[in-house]
Amino acid sequence: MSTPVTAAILVIGDEILSGRTKDKNIGTIADVLMAMGIDLREVRIVPDVEEEIVAAANALRRRYTYLFTTGGIGPTHDDITADSIAKAFGVGISERPDAIAMLLERIKPEDLNEARRRMARIPDGADLIRNDVSKAPGFMLDNVVVMAGVPAIMQNMLDNVAPRLAGGTRMVSRSIDAAGLPEGAYAAGLGALAKAHAEVSIGSYPSFSPDGFRNQIVVRGRDEARVAAAAAAVETLLADLRGDAVPV
Amino acid sequence: MSTPVTAAILVIGDEILSGRTKDKNIGTIADVLMAMGIDLREVRIVPDVEEEIVAAANALRRRYTYLFTTGGIGPTHDDITADSIAKAFGVGISERPDAIAMLLERIKPEDLNEARRRMARIPDGADLIRNDVSKAPGFMLDNVVVMAGVPAIMQNMLDNVAPRLAGGTRMVSRSIDAAGLPEGAYAAGLGALAKAHAEVSIGSYPSFSPDGFRNQIVVRGRDEARVAAAAAAVETLLADLRGDAVPV
Repeated sequence: MSTPVTAAILVIGDEILSGRTKDKNIGTIADVLMAMGIDLREVRIVPDVEEEIVAAANALRRRYTYLFTTGGIGPTHDDITADSIAKAFGVGISERPDAIAMLLERIKPEDLNEARRRMARIPDGADLIRNDVSKAPGFMLDNVVVMAGVPAIMQNMLDNVAPRLAGGTRMVSRSIDAAGLPEGAYAAGLGALAKAHAEVSIGSYPSFSPDGFRNQIVVRGRDEARVAAAAAAVETLLADLRGDAVPV
Repeated sequence: MSTPVTAAILVIGDEILSGRTKDKNIGTIADVLMAMGIDLREVRIVPDVEEEIVAAANALRRRYTYLFTTGGIGPTHDDITADSIAKAFGVGISERPDAIAMLLERIKPEDLNEARRRMARIPDGADLIRNDVSKAPGFMLDNVVVMAGVPAIMQNMLDNVAPRLAGGTRMVSRSIDAAGLPEGAYAAGLGALAKAHAEVSIGSYPSFSPDGFRNQIVVRGRDEARVAAAAAAVETLLADLRGDAVPV
């Protein structure tokens, strides 16, 4: 079995922690990584404080195959992500002509003031990531992918960087509706199944709606046959508990 | 000035990391903490893996006034939050009669099987948190508040535990619409203002809509007069940049 490709996300921004902005990027990145077969293992949200960003970036980039950051790459004083990532790697940072060229696709030369030029400050050794929405680029340095916080821009950068990433083996997932059964009725049986099928991951996810609880059991793994076998065992368990003769 | 009351959130659950479930709890908790004057400083999302939960819980509970966890307190084998928190504190865990009594408000005695009894396993020394939605309680152990992951239940537990928390001084926030001005136009002036008004926090938050970018500048702090002074300075800056004679 090949080594799994893993990832973490670091969301940078006071506006998320204050509740002012509700994050939408974590879910988007999680979906894209899942589709690529990359395991998202951890997420952190930190404020616009250099030492917090540096500490989290170093912890996460060393532990996982990839680290994706969102937020803090605009032109204002609170946009300190690029400088923080340079500091985390111990490399220099300077204004890059190719980044300036990208900015000039949207900004008139006479409007390219000092603040806007900040968006062309890129850590040494990084590759730029195109931004087709507002032009100011993201960048990838070693295994760290630095993207904007505005969701439309983040998504575009993620699309543009995805072909450069090594995907893992895609995860196969089967979802089984435990309709009519509360979690407490199948928990013991499901626990035994999880032990018997240790090579896959089995989770039980209740959700609450005006109609009451509705539980989904999700079987995930990299080997399609093993996932199918475990899912069949779950269906048999649920059918037995419902008193059905045949799984539905 | 009083010491700030701080907090972190630890979201526990494979389903968030896989993208299958989109977290709604972080934003809800952030709003409630902001209203109470408690500073949310960090968020982490970790999988249903005991050592990950223990490590994150210990890092965060030691660093902040409060730690709020969501997820992993149901009856199935992947619900390991209560045991992980007990382990993080190095205390025992056992079935509690008062928690069983709460379960029996909803579950018939003959349906109280071993799996459901798991929801009454509470670390030694913890206080229960009522759950008016589905009855299985959360708990508070020292400075750690352990809640369900299902948003309707989490909100109810948060409401029920809030009166036990020491609120800080409420943050005062003023939002100024930078309508008509791109970030790059005011970034230098805003950076200077942020230095001059270091006792407040000034952020610039672009958002993208079909009509284009719309930037909001947010001034936050604990002292209303200082926030008002900084906000007035921001309005003067924007008015000057727009060429207006009088701030609007």
